Amino acid sequence: MSTTTETRGETVTPATPAVDFAGVIALLERGRTLATPVLRAAVDRLAPPMDTVAAYHFGWIDADGRPAAGDGGKAVRPALALLSAQAAGADPEVGVPGAVAVELVHNFSLLHDDLMDGDEQRRHRDTVWKVHGPAQAILVGDALFALAGEILLELGTVEAGRATRRLTSATRKLIDGQAQDISYEHRERVTVEECLEMEGNKTGALLACAASIGAVLGGADDRTADTLERYGYHLGLAFQAVDDVLGIWGDPVSTGKQTWSDLRQRKKSLPVVAALAAGGRASEDLAQILAADANKPEDEFADFSEEEFATRAALIEEAGGRDWTSAEARRQYATAIEALDEVDMPGEVRDQFVALADFVVVRER
Amino acid sequence: MSTTTETRGETVTPATPAVDFAGVIALLERGRTLATPVLRAAVDRLAPPMDTVAAYHFGWIDADGRPAAGDGGKAVRPALALLSAQAAGADPEVGVPGAVAVELVHNFSLLHDDLMDGDEQRRHRDTVWKVHGPAQAILVGDALFALAGEILLELGTVEAGRATRRLTSATRKLIDGQAQDISYEHRERVTVEECLEMEGNKTGALLACAASIGAVLGGADDRTADTLERYGYHLGLAFQAVDDVLGIWGDPVSTGKQTWSDLRQRKKSLPVVAALAAGGRASEDLAQILAADANKPEDEFADFSEEEFATRAALIEEAGGRDWTSAEARRQYATAIEALDEVDMPGEVRDQFVALADFVVVRER
Repeated sequence: MSTTTETRGETVTPATPAVDFAGVIALLERGRTLATPVLRAAVDRLAPPMDTVAAYHFGWIDADGRPAAGDGGKAVRPALALLSAQAAGADPEVGVPGAVAVELVHNFSLLHDDLMDGDEQRRHRDTVWKVHGPAQAILVGDALFALAGEILLELGTVEAGRATRRLTSATRKLIDGQAQDISYEHRERVTVEECLEMEGNKTGALLACAASIGAVLGGADDRTADTLERYGYHLGLAFQAVDDVLGIWGDPVSTGKQTWSDLRQRKKSLPVVAALAAGGRASEDLAQILAADANKPEDEFADFSEEEFATRAALIEEAGGRDWTSAEARRQYATAIEALDEVDMPGEVRDQFVALADFVVVRER
Repeated sequence: MSTTTETRGETVTPATPAVDFAGVIALLERGRTLATPVLRAAVDRLAPPMDTVAAYHFGWIDADGRPAAGDGGKAVRPALALLSAQAAGADPEVGVPGAVAVELVHNFSLLHDDLMDGDEQRRHRDTVWKVHGPAQAILVGDALFALAGEILLELGTVEAGRATRRLTSATRKLIDGQAQDISYEHRERVTVEECLEMEGNKTGALLACAASIGAVLGGADDRTADTLERYGYHLGLAFQAVDDVLGIWGDPVSTGKQTWSDLRQRKKSLPVVAALAAGGRASEDLAQILAADANKPEDEFADFSEEEFATRAALIEEAGGRDWTSAEARRQYATAIEALDEVDMPGEVRDQFVALADFVVVRER
């Protein structure tokens, strides 16, 4: 994403931020350090065996119950929640219950989505339904969702009620997004707009909530919270656009996924729908090939050679799907950053929001 | 339940209430009339196809999408929620969002439990996972749970925050109860206390919430809400004890279930655990038979003759399991009614709480 790209007639200014990695790592570390003990204490409230199943999901123990190092992900959401408390002039600690509640909802959705999608691996480990069975994946997901509300509402403040309302609304969008994702799988054609809406629901809504929930708990008014939500929402879409590019062209060593991962899953991700919408020779060829693919049985499709996926990827790129998606990531990033200017916050806090956005968008290929 | 029964040395006064059926029917009808339109409007908010799946679950449409008569159950919970608003001196309408939220949570748990338990029928119709697939059962369950919080929190009042907190805590108990139910299936022995705790979580907690949520929305203090919860909790346990008797000895025509329904499912319900705990010849014979049953494969067990189940039922009865459970229903009923005396409410409202309890406990065999 380092060159100016002509896409559909508009010139997108390159946003190649010089990421302050040390600063971002400190910010992520702070989020993890403050939120994890509270998250662990929340999970400890679960009745057995749900506490153990949840601890496995979070990577705190292995399948045999032995303590594990625990790869809890990048922890961008907790970092955002703490920062958003500071945007409202409060201490970062004020955002902790919000950070924990958002993480609980995020993990509730992972547990259920992995089961619905039949995904057997997450973060290089077997998923919960694979290890502990479908019933536990449903049950523990439900319990984490309920815990999220519990953690916030036991604060007993008006702000906590407002925060819970916003988190609930984000959760509904998350569920809408998963419903769309499932229904799109069975459709031959998905528009770019539908794909963006689905990704906004699945990824944008909860990042939006993370970026504003600390501010809400810190007493920010609705306008401030809405604006911070806008930052988080578009940051989520930028993240997802980058993810969609990596899902096809990402290096397996960095992504931890197979080569052509999203193509293997026949995912109608942004590069694919943009390529199909572009028109022209490559787009039409791609459409024909994907229509034929859709009718192939699962195992025949899984046996495709590297070359067959490479052909599809090349057509997507030729039709402009890759460039469009990279440009879309920059557009969404720019919209996210613009929102920050509408909130009156300390310059240092604004800089950290920007650095986090840079980090999210500039990821290793 | 019309005779005095000697149980474990204590004399339980018979509670054979002369149920004011007309009054109860009017009360249930009022709950249904006020809550159903709001419930339908809430479900209409769901994105397709979740709205259709939910409408099927509630019985508003059939599997082909055609309008259906809709057997939404007895609607005891909405009736309780409205009555509890009146207990706090508010209009019954004040309880409506609470009634709807409780119904949403109840149906969230039905959707997920049916899938986890592999139950193919509910209210004489195929369950959602059977008709629309497991993913929709998970997804729509999640959506109903989220909607419950949304309906309450959008009221934007302090009372709504308190009501949501109580509902969330009841939902956590519901989930705990389901976790216990699942884990007890794999255990050879379950104590009477464990069974009561599980039933209190699965049935008592949400009835407790229904019986208090209207009062909370009407501005009642925590002590009043706690006391009304106690009424609902013990009413739930009374209901469940009656249900456990009907689950073995109920008339299939009235219950809509198979003969010896709970025995066919090898359920460790109250009559069974009480019989096993009683000691003596019949209890020991029963223990031996059930231990052997537990090791039989599903299909061999399903092929049992009526006589084989009748033998087991007779041993449970001989060991005192049936009488103990009927007596337990009366004890729980009495505890529920006692709680009502601790709340200062209009006599007419109290009478209606009592009539609803009578109705719940005195059901057709």
